[in-house]
Amino acid sequence: MKCRVCKGPAVIDVRRHNAAFCRDHFVHHCEEQVRRAIHHFRMLEPGERVLVAVSGGKDSLALWDILVRLGYEADGLYLGLGIGDYSDVSARYVHDYVAERGVKLHQIDLAEEYGLGIPAAAAATHRAPCGACGLSKRHLFNRAAIEHGYDVVATGHNLDDEAAVLLGNVLRWDVGYLGRQHPVLPSAPGFVRKVKPLVRLGERESAAYCVLRGIDYQVDECPMADGNRHLGYKELLNALEHRSPGTKAAFLFGFLERGHQRFADDVAAERAALTPCTSCGAPTPGDVCAFCRLQVRATGVEPVDAPIRRS
Amino acid sequence: MKCRVCKGPAVIDVRRHNAAFCRDHFVHHCEEQVRRAIHHFRMLEPGERVLVAVSGGKDSLALWDILVRLGYEADGLYLGLGIGDYSDVSARYVHDYVAERGVKLHQIDLAEEYGLGIPAAAAATHRAPCGACGLSKRHLFNRAAIEHGYDVVATGHNLDDEAAVLLGNVLRWDVGYLGRQHPVLPSAPGFVRKVKPLVRLGERESAAYCVLRGIDYQVDECPMADGNRHLGYKELLNALEHRSPGTKAAFLFGFLERGHQRFADDVAAERAALTPCTSCGAPTPGDVCAFCRLQVRATGVEPVDAPIRRS
Repeated sequence: MKCRVCKGPAVIDVRRHNAAFCRDHFVHHCEEQVRRAIHHFRMLEPGERVLVAVSGGKDSLALWDILVRLGYEADGLYLGLGIGDYSDVSARYVHDYVAERGVKLHQIDLAEEYGLGIPAAAAATHRAPCGACGLSKRHLFNRAAIEHGYDVVATGHNLDDEAAVLLGNVLRWDVGYLGRQHPVLPSAPGFVRKVKPLVRLGERESAAYCVLRGIDYQVDECPMADGNRHLGYKELLNALEHRSPGTKAAFLFGFLERGHQRFADDVAAERAALTPCTSCGAPTPGDVCAFCRLQVRATGVEPVDAPIRRS
Repeated sequence: MKCRVCKGPAVIDVRRHNAAFCRDHFVHHCEEQVRRAIHHFRMLEPGERVLVAVSGGKDSLALWDILVRLGYEADGLYLGLGIGDYSDVSARYVHDYVAERGVKLHQIDLAEEYGLGIPAAAAATHRAPCGACGLSKRHLFNRAAIEHGYDVVATGHNLDDEAAVLLGNVLRWDVGYLGRQHPVLPSAPGFVRKVKPLVRLGERESAAYCVLRGIDYQVDECPMADGNRHLGYKELLNALEHRSPGTKAAFLFGFLERGHQRFADDVAAERAALTPCTSCGAPTPGDVCAFCRLQVRATGVEPVDAPIRRS
């Protein structure tokens, strides 16, 4: 197995590209895929400040590393989810990375600051933990970006994640989610732009990137996601990809090129109808946003956040 | 396990309906599902003459049987595909059914009448056998219906078939196929209507229907379909259905309710642009239709059919 670029000994192959790479050219390949995604989907403009949602896993650390190497001003935000050892270990990987690379990190602790550790919040509200977790992340990453003056939030969703979410969305023909599924969610009143620059990289590639760049990361899946359907969809897509390399990329990018726009109009109307949450000011279809309602239901007391103010 | 209707001993359960049935009520359940599909999608009007595409398999024989029991004037058309023993055995099941039930059968032999037995045609044209077979069936069922004065062609595609085709179409985001995927393809100049009345029945149900109604059928899969992607998609959907009964029906009917129309316009324009084949008169986007071209490539001689004439 030889490197596609320099013909030296390869350390990894990428079947859907029908290619193998040595260490240096694989790192370059990953950067190039991110550069192409950013360019193609117009994710970032020169000079914009990026807030990277870091979890301590391979994807978010690889994303942060690549964005900095590509020259972006990218700082991190770690959200402590209060999921026991799993969260402690995750935080340690993030702190180690920050200490070694000398990058800037913001931090929010859900349990301490909001009384909303995910296991307790899920139990108290009878919500699925992944639902309460996703909702909290979306709300707090957006809020932190506005408060600290970032133009955009970048998340580490990779090709495997996005293809699995898409499969779930088409299996249910959930037209709202299909309209919202895009690597760029544009800014709107109360929302900064959200982007997914790893959308052209598989999770095997982001893992290999971390290993080859000497980045240690949380290897375990979140214990609360066990039995989650999303992981089942990933397995099915892996079986298809194994039989026919390139299936996942064709599925996701085919949707983005030929499917997404057919579902987008419904969502634009929905977004235009949002009004500020009477408690925290975040855009919401009702009076009080889902995050503030989650807090009330989980803690029994009123939400702690004052209305958002741009720094 | 008790029958949902009469509480007598059940012979089969249908997990996605969370129900079990005795023999008589299962037969009624199948008829009811077909009746509902016909009604919901407006497949057939009273008094219309139906040509059923029969292969000798469980689906087409169950379909024919149910249509006759529901009171439709439904005759069969068997197409001899020239696939060795498989075709011989299939034809025998069709003839046995016709002899026992006293129904009317038309018959066309692809090899004898067109020099187009599927294995030879696929080899000569370097086409995948399933492609050449599907193309020939669509052409000849339509032609026979027009010539013999039928209003509509009914095929035995079931829920499993349609869900697997849909999965293939969304994995590639093939917008043309997505626009055409519907249980009713309306009539148009040169085309009779095509309908799929088994779309609400799984293949396990059509098989059980045949067993319980004493209909013998060809059990083997076509030997030429081996390794075909469609069968892989069926397996994946079976895994999902096993974990979560109702997944396939939600996928297919969700698409028909909320997805299909978004892809239909492209296809209407495409269909409006068809002109008669200069050889046989069938509608085609080019000068000569794909079936006539297949004949020329497979046999080296000009197509045998004269232009279609309505009887």
